[in-house]
Amino acid sequence: MTEQSRPLDALNRARDKRVIVELKNNKQYIGKLKAFDIHINVVLEDAEEYTDGQMKRKLGMVFIRGDTITVISPQ
Amino acid sequence: MTEQSRPLDALNRARDKRVIVELKNNKQYIGKLKAFDIHINVVLEDAEEYTDGQMKRKLGMVFIRGDTITVISPQ
Amino acid sequence: MTEQSRPLDALNRARDKRVIVELKNNKQYIGKLKAFDIHINVVLEDAEEYTDGQMKRKLGMVFIRGDTITVISPQ
Amino acid sequence: MTEQSRPLDALNRARDKRVIVELKNNKQYIGKLKAFDIHINVVLEDAEEYTDGQMKRKLGMVFIRGDTITVISPQ
Amino acid sequence: MTEQSRPLDALNRARDKRVIVELKNNKQYIGKLKAFDIHINVVLEDAEEYTDGQMKRKLGMVFIRGDTITVISPQ
Amino acid sequence: MTEQSRPLDALNRARDKRVIVELKNNKQYIGKLKAFDIHINVVLEDAEEYTDGQMKRKLGMVFIRGDTITVISPQ
Amino acid sequence: MTEQSRPLDALNRARDKRVIVELKNNKQYIGKLKAFDIHINVVLEDAEEYTDGQMKRKLGMVFIRGDTITVISPQ
Repeated sequence: MTEQSRPLDALNRARDKRVIVELKNNKQYIGKLKAFDIHINVVLEDAEEYTDGQMKRKLGMVFIRGDTITVISPQ
Repeated sequence: MTEQSRPLDALNRARDKRVIVELKNNKQYIGKLKAFDIHINVVLEDAEEYTDGQMKRKLGMVFIRGDTITVISPQ
Repeated sequence: MTEQSRPLDALNRARDKRVIVELKNNKQYIGKLKAFDIHINVVLEDAEEYTDGQMKRKLGMVFIRGDTITVISPQ
Repeated sequence: MTEQSRPLDALNRARDKRVIVELKNNKQYIGKLKAFDIHINVVLEDAEEYTDGQMKRKLGMVFIRGDTITVISPQ
Repeated sequence: MTEQSRPLDALNRARDKRVIVELKNNKQYIGKLKAFDIHINVVLEDAEEYTDGQMKRKLGMVFIRGDTITVISPQ
Repeated sequence: MTEQSRPLDALNRARDKRVIVELKNNKQYIGKLKAFDIHINVVLEDAEEYTDGQMKRKLGMVFIRGDTITVISPQ
Repeated sequence: MTEQSRPLDALNRARDKRVIVELKNNKQYIGKLKAFDIHINVVLEDAEEYTDGQMKRKLGMVFIRGDTITVISPQ
C-alpha cells in the first residue's frame, strides 16, 4: 500500500512554495513551506497570520505544532 | 483476525476515486483520494471545501491531518 | 488475564453483521461491519448516517476513524 | 511498586459481574463485564444505556472504546 | 534526574490511605487508594462520588481511567 | 541539539523550590516541587490550590497529572 | 525528505533569541528561548505572560508543556 504515493510526498512537493496552514483554533498561516516532519510540525517563512479571513500579523518565521493543524494546501 | 479484511484495504480500494472526508470541525473536503498513511493523514486532488453543505473553496491539492478526520466515504 | 475473552473478539463475532457505531460528535452509522483494526478504525458497508435518530444519508462504504468512536453494538 | 495490586486486577475481579461504565459524554452503560484490555476497551453483555439516570435503550452486546470511559464500578 | 524522588513514589506512599481524585469533568472521588499504574489508572475502595462538593453516591470499588484525572491528593 | 540545555533541566533546577503549576482547567497549584517525570507528572508539597487568583484549599501533597498542565514557573 | 531542513532546526536557530509562544488557551508567553525538546516542551527566560494582547505577569523562567502550544515565532 505504501509503495504508492504517501501523504508526506505531497508535502515534500510543496516545499519552498507558499501554502495555507489551517489550525484547529480557526487561525490560518500563509507562508513559504520550509520544513515539516512526521508529526506534521511545520515551519513557514514570510508568514502571515489570518483570523476569519483578516490578516492580523506578519511574522518572519513561524513554527506550527503538528497537532494543532487540520489541513495544509498549496496556495 | 487481521488476515481478513482490514480498514486500510477499504481506503486502498478508494484510491484515485472521489471521496468525502469529514472533519471534527464539521468541514467536509471532497476530492480524488491520492494518498493516505496509517495515521489516516490523507491527500486529495481537485478538492473542494464545504461547510454546512455549502461549497466554500476550490483547492488543488489538500493534505488533511488524520487526527482531525471522523469519516471517509467514496462519493 | 488476556487468555480470556478480549474486546476485539467481540467485534470479530460481529463481522458481516449490522452494527451501530456511535461517534463523539453524536452521529451514528448503521451498516454491515466489514473490517476493523486495533485502533478501532472501522469499515461499514451499506451504511446509513443518523443524527438525533434521523436518517441523514445513505452511504455505500464508510471508513470511520477509531478515535471518534464511543461505542459499537450489534443491531 | 507493581508487584502489589494493579488496577486491571480489580477489573478482572469484576468479570462476569454487572458494572456501571461512565463515559465522557455523560452516558452510562450498565451490563455484565465480559472483556477488557489494556486500553480499557470494554465489552458488556445484557447492557442498558442511561442518560441523566434515564434508561434509554437495551443493547445485547456493547463494545465501549477505552478512551471515552471515565470510571467503571461494580454495581 | 530520576534517581531522585519520582511522582509515582508519592502515589505509592499514599497506598491504603484515603485520597481525593479529581477528574477533568469536575467530579471528585474520595476513597482508599488500592492500586495505580503508569497511566495513572487508579482503583479506590469505599469510594464516594462528589459533584460541586456534594456527595452523590457511595461506591464500593471504583476504577478511574488515568487520562480523566487532573490531581490526586491524600486527604 | 540536545547536548545543550533541555527543558527538564530547568525543572530539575526548580526542585525543592516553590513553583506555580497552571492547569488547562484554569486552576493553579503553588507548592514545593518534589518530583516530576518525563510525562511532566508533578508532585508538590505544602501545596495550595487557586482558582481565579483566590486560594481555595491547602493540600499537603498533591500529584498533578502531566497532561493537564500548561506551564510551570518558579515563584 | 528529512535530509533537508527540519522543523526543530528552525527552533534551534531561535535559541537565546526572544520568541512568542502561543498556547491553545490563547495565552502568549514572550521570552528568551533557552531549551526545547522533541515534544516541543519549551523553557523561556525573562518571560512575560499576555492575554488578549495585555501583559499580565512577568515571570523569571517558565516551562511550557509542548502539547499546549500552537505556534512559536521569533519576535
